[in-house]
Amino acid sequence: MSTSTSTGTTAGPAAPTASAAVRLRPVPPGQARITGGVWHERAEVNRSATIPTGLEYLRKANNVRNLEIAAGTVEGSPQGPIFADSDVHKWVEAAAWEYGRSGGEDLLEAQLELTGFLARAQAEDGYLNSVVEVREGERYRKLPWSHEHYCAGHLIQAAVAQARTTGRRELLDVGTRIADHLVATFGPGKIEDVDGHPVIETALVELYRETGTREYLDLAQWFVEARGHGLIASHGHEPTYFSDRVPVREATTVEGHAVRAVYLAAGATDVAVETGDTELLEALRRQYDSMERSKQYLTGGLGSRWEGESFGDPYELPADRAYAETCAAIGGVQWAWRMLLATGEARYADQIERMLLNGMLAGVSLTGREFFYVNPLQLRSDANPEENRSPAHGRRGWFDCACCPPNVMRTLSSLAGYLATTGTASTGDAGPPSVQIHQYAAGTIAAAGLELDVETAYPWEGSVRVTVRNAPAAPVALALRVPAWADGATLDGDLVTAGEYASVTRTWAEGDAVTLDLPLTPRFTVADERVDAVRGCVALERGPLVYAVEAHDQPDGVVVDDVRADPSGEVTAEHREDLLGGVTVLHLQGYRGSPPPADALSPYAAAGARRAEPGEPVQLTAIPYYAWANRGPRPMRVWIPVARG
Amino acid sequence: MSTSTSTGTTAGPAAPTASAAVRLRPVPPGQARITGGVWHERAEVNRSATIPTGLEYLRKANNVRNLEIAAGTVEGSPQGPIFADSDVHKWVEAAAWEYGRSGGEDLLEAQLELTGFLARAQAEDGYLNSVVEVREGERYRKLPWSHEHYCAGHLIQAAVAQARTTGRRELLDVGTRIADHLVATFGPGKIEDVDGHPVIETALVELYRETGTREYLDLAQWFVEARGHGLIASHGHEPTYFSDRVPVREATTVEGHAVRAVYLAAGATDVAVETGDTELLEALRRQYDSMERSKQYLTGGLGSRWEGESFGDPYELPADRAYAETCAAIGGVQWAWRMLLATGEARYADQIERMLLNGMLAGVSLTGREFFYVNPLQLRSDANPEENRSPAHGRRGWFDCACCPPNVMRTLSSLAGYLATTGTASTGDAGPPSVQIHQYAAGTIAAAGLELDVETAYPWEGSVRVTVRNAPAAPVALALRVPAWADGATLDGDLVTAGEYASVTRTWAEGDAVTLDLPLTPRFTVADERVDAVRGCVALERGPLVYAVEAHDQPDGVVVDDVRADPSGEVTAEHREDLLGGVTVLHLQGYRGSPPPADALSPYAAAGARRAEPGEPVQLTAIPYYAWANRGPRPMRVWIPVARG
Repeated sequence: MSTSTSTGTTAGPAAPTASAAVRLRPVPPGQARITGGVWHERAEVNRSATIPTGLEYLRKANNVRNLEIAAGTVEGSPQGPIFADSDVHKWVEAAAWEYGRSGGEDLLEAQLELTGFLARAQAEDGYLNSVVEVREGERYRKLPWSHEHYCAGHLIQAAVAQARTTGRRELLDVGTRIADHLVATFGPGKIEDVDGHPVIETALVELYRETGTREYLDLAQWFVEARGHGLIASHGHEPTYFSDRVPVREATTVEGHAVRAVYLAAGATDVAVETGDTELLEALRRQYDSMERSKQYLTGGLGSRWEGESFGDPYELPADRAYAETCAAIGGVQWAWRMLLATGEARYADQIERMLLNGMLAGVSLTGREFFYVNPLQLRSDANPEENRSPAHGRRGWFDCACCPPNVMRTLSSLAGYLATTGTASTGDAGPPSVQIHQYAAGTIAAAGLELDVETAYPWEGSVRVTVRNAPAAPVALALRVPAWADGATLDGDLVTAGEYASVTRTWAEGDAVTLDLPLTPRFTVADERVDAVRGCVALERGPLVYAVEAHDQPDGVVVDDVRADPSGEVTAEHREDLLGGVTVLHLQGYRGSPPPADALSPYAAAGARRAEPGEPVQLTAIPYYAWANRGPRPMRVWIPVARG
Repeated sequence: MSTSTSTGTTAGPAAPTASAAVRLRPVPPGQARITGGVWHERAEVNRSATIPTGLEYLRKANNVRNLEIAAGTVEGSPQGPIFADSDVHKWVEAAAWEYGRSGGEDLLEAQLELTGFLARAQAEDGYLNSVVEVREGERYRKLPWSHEHYCAGHLIQAAVAQARTTGRRELLDVGTRIADHLVATFGPGKIEDVDGHPVIETALVELYRETGTREYLDLAQWFVEARGHGLIASHGHEPTYFSDRVPVREATTVEGHAVRAVYLAAGATDVAVETGDTELLEALRRQYDSMERSKQYLTGGLGSRWEGESFGDPYELPADRAYAETCAAIGGVQWAWRMLLATGEARYADQIERMLLNGMLAGVSLTGREFFYVNPLQLRSDANPEENRSPAHGRRGWFDCACCPPNVMRTLSSLAGYLATTGTASTGDAGPPSVQIHQYAAGTIAAAGLELDVETAYPWEGSVRVTVRNAPAAPVALALRVPAWADGATLDGDLVTAGEYASVTRTWAEGDAVTLDLPLTPRFTVADERVDAVRGCVALERGPLVYAVEAHDQPDGVVVDDVRADPSGEVTAEHREDLLGGVTVLHLQGYRGSPPPADALSPYAAAGARRAEPGEPVQLTAIPYYAWANRGPRPMRVWIPVARG
């Protein structure tokens, strides 16, 4: 059935077909390149440290051995969680994108070695899951928990990445065989069941995009539509946990396990654009609105609850107990990217930037060798470091459930895929070809006949200069995103509107340049009153970065739990090349605050009896949130209580 | 070894031996009786509804059948959680205390029927656990999780209660046989392991108190001291979860699973007073201080986290996600009671009152037939009701893990045991015999030769009149607790000091009376600034009761999520006999607040750009927290944001 006609697109992680109902089409990573700045630095560390270390961990944790067992080349029983294979698949995907980005025979060889194990581990009929096949024994017996489609999905994503960046077909063959197996096994009149953990949806759509095999899209569509109809038995969690309480097209919000919810939403968005299903897309927009409006942290982090790793109730956004799983920020980026392609609205590019630079990037250390699973916005003094995944413990090299590290790897290695698009932005319809630049990093972009150089020290500096190196002899619209926070931004000196794309249409000549100036004035941010957890607090942002006050940088004796901010005071920015890999820190005016009275037996007192003394004035220093906990875990807070007179 | 010489003490739940290092000794429930008021009403509902319904659920949920299976009278495999037996034991304990309180052959017969099953289910060597023995097959194989000592502990507590209230020895014989089995099996040179869930400690000490068998105390002491030395393997949770991170005598705080922690602390306090271990008692005082200072809700509720049902970090006390398990409040009462006996300090009696009237009492509906497992201080609009144990769902008739309902039953049936003591309060040492009244309810107390009538409509009214009905011909000190909140309290018109006992020593004559007047002026309470979750909020209290604003009582269109309080406004109290079984409600001045702007895409905005409008003035009505969710679950909040000008 599968045609396996790799198009060799060299596309990035999500490449809508020509017939997809999208307003924007990604500029593939090969044509959009990042060559300097924070993202380049992070990608280089990902290349030199994270990806190689990750493979070591996968070997140590037996994930690779499991495949060899399934392949029959090693004796034994698979170890680790039931979804252990998926971490290998994500690593291969990361290696594939990274090979596309920076090359290197080591990356190709390691991929192909693993691909060999995978091919040999695959059953005759296409089924592939080492833990279920060898250890559990029976396929699809408890699909809500067995992650069999989840693992297949990650394999397929890796296969597509490998095909796009190496041109090699080996893993794509494995992927199409497993997809064919799924098509033959699941759907109306076959096994009518869905995996408890989505990801197969995006994967099947992408394989359809890569191969043209319509059945993959149909099955993805069926998996999306099957949810919310009681297929998933509870298994200790309610249907909400699995995004199975309400059919996707009827849902008005996101709920339950955050990673599952956003992976599903991303897949549903893919299905909506490939099938031209405007009703489904509208439902997804409604859900996205609800998420952004009431269920997202300032850092872009998603998931308020440790319990069930879930989205909480609307406006339930505690700073200290934020779960904000690294994977959820990544899933959020994937969904936002698909919404951006579908709608052309700048708000989704803003969201991508917020999630990438804050929620996701905090999940990996500056060395690239240690990770956070959970990304809170506050760490208290005397926090117990012992709880599993506790940020008070500091970052960890790996996890028993190691979903986050390879997810970071595949994201950092494919970042260039999120830089730019061609098509029609929401600001206008018909017209000349257009290029949209969504994210700002030093690099090059080749699209719609234009070859562009981007020069910028963003996010440390607000100037983005785009120079034309080559251009067609016809008009092209060049659209630059003006983030919603960038009031006062100018394009070549003219004010442009924040929250939209600033577009210039002309017949370009080599050497032409436009300069976007984004004001990076530090700004204090407040939350809606319904966000009870941070009432009376401000956060500090500069450009796309959320800042945090970490104990390391404060004057002697200042206790982060007790500090107060004075938002009427001046905030100064200082770039510190020597600090945390080079960051701009912010100095703000505040007060030392006052600790609980030494003799207090209770934290409660009659109103008025105990005053909240602001304490003596101090200058506080904030660092980008993403860089916290790189000098050992010490108290930190994003939201700072405002001193009240 | 066991001597099983029941003393027939008719004592209450915790009865220190004559040699125990305590300052106060409980007045047994038979000599302290509650005959009117809230506690009497609740006890009557417990008698007529909760206890009978509980037995029905235990039969329906197979807990009783499990015992019959273990007894060999029924075929099958035990059902339910591994600690299923313990719910039967707690029910028997409740029935025993209730039999002592109100009599009734039905209660005696049901107890004895269950006792018969238990006796027949007990193994030759004294071991008794239907689920482990029949279903799991191997004893003590995974003690951190198997709850085998936990079940034994609850059985022993039931046995002691039955002996004290009925004089019957049947269950005490079962209890001593299981205790003898434990003594023969555990300890130095035997199995050196501890149960993951404490309760055996208080149970063994009480059995020692009832029987005089020293080995029970020794084993309880060993179990207390064994913790914190790495005996408990992780089993998916860290040692903290099991109160096993630090030895009890070295611990400076409570941590991990809240119920486990306070049960252990109660048992350790028993051990400390019975062995005269002042160092251990000092450690427990330090831990209690830490708990009260930084890890307790205003309602007395304990446990901030759903994850691991645990105490959170210091000052991590979210209102919305408070776990505050009903059982934890009960365990807190047990610990506080033992600290009160040990120290004679009024603060522990204050704590008992706070935990009983708020944290615990909220756990059962006014009908007595439905329960909360989790007792948050806020329920938001649009809260998802589907999560297991979610208060948004409302109260439930029973739980798969049904620890809380029978725990409520045994507490309500033994309340009179917490009313009064004899001995020497901390305010003075040597001197005449003394009686301390710790909790106020209409009733009678006979102690130290005094026979007293207590007349009061507390907690609705603040006057407590104690009349002497009989007295010895020698001086007796009568000490009445003046709660710490009761500034301005008077005894017979003279000001007395809040937070201490007001004591009158005289040779009493029949008809003598003293009147304590506790000012029940409604008061606004604030939390320390470190309690980030309720910054900028006030709570409303009156006497010992914490109040809550529930949607049911507010003017049309008022959204509880958005309301603001004006703590400078007048608060009026109104007794409503028709409402919620008869409660005093409070009317306070406030504002409607403003919902998030309809067009807000994000809850975050530039400081100053979005004002928190107080909205129009409204009169809000607050009910006692314990009575919430008796008219269906609707939004509720204890902490109300203060309107800022």
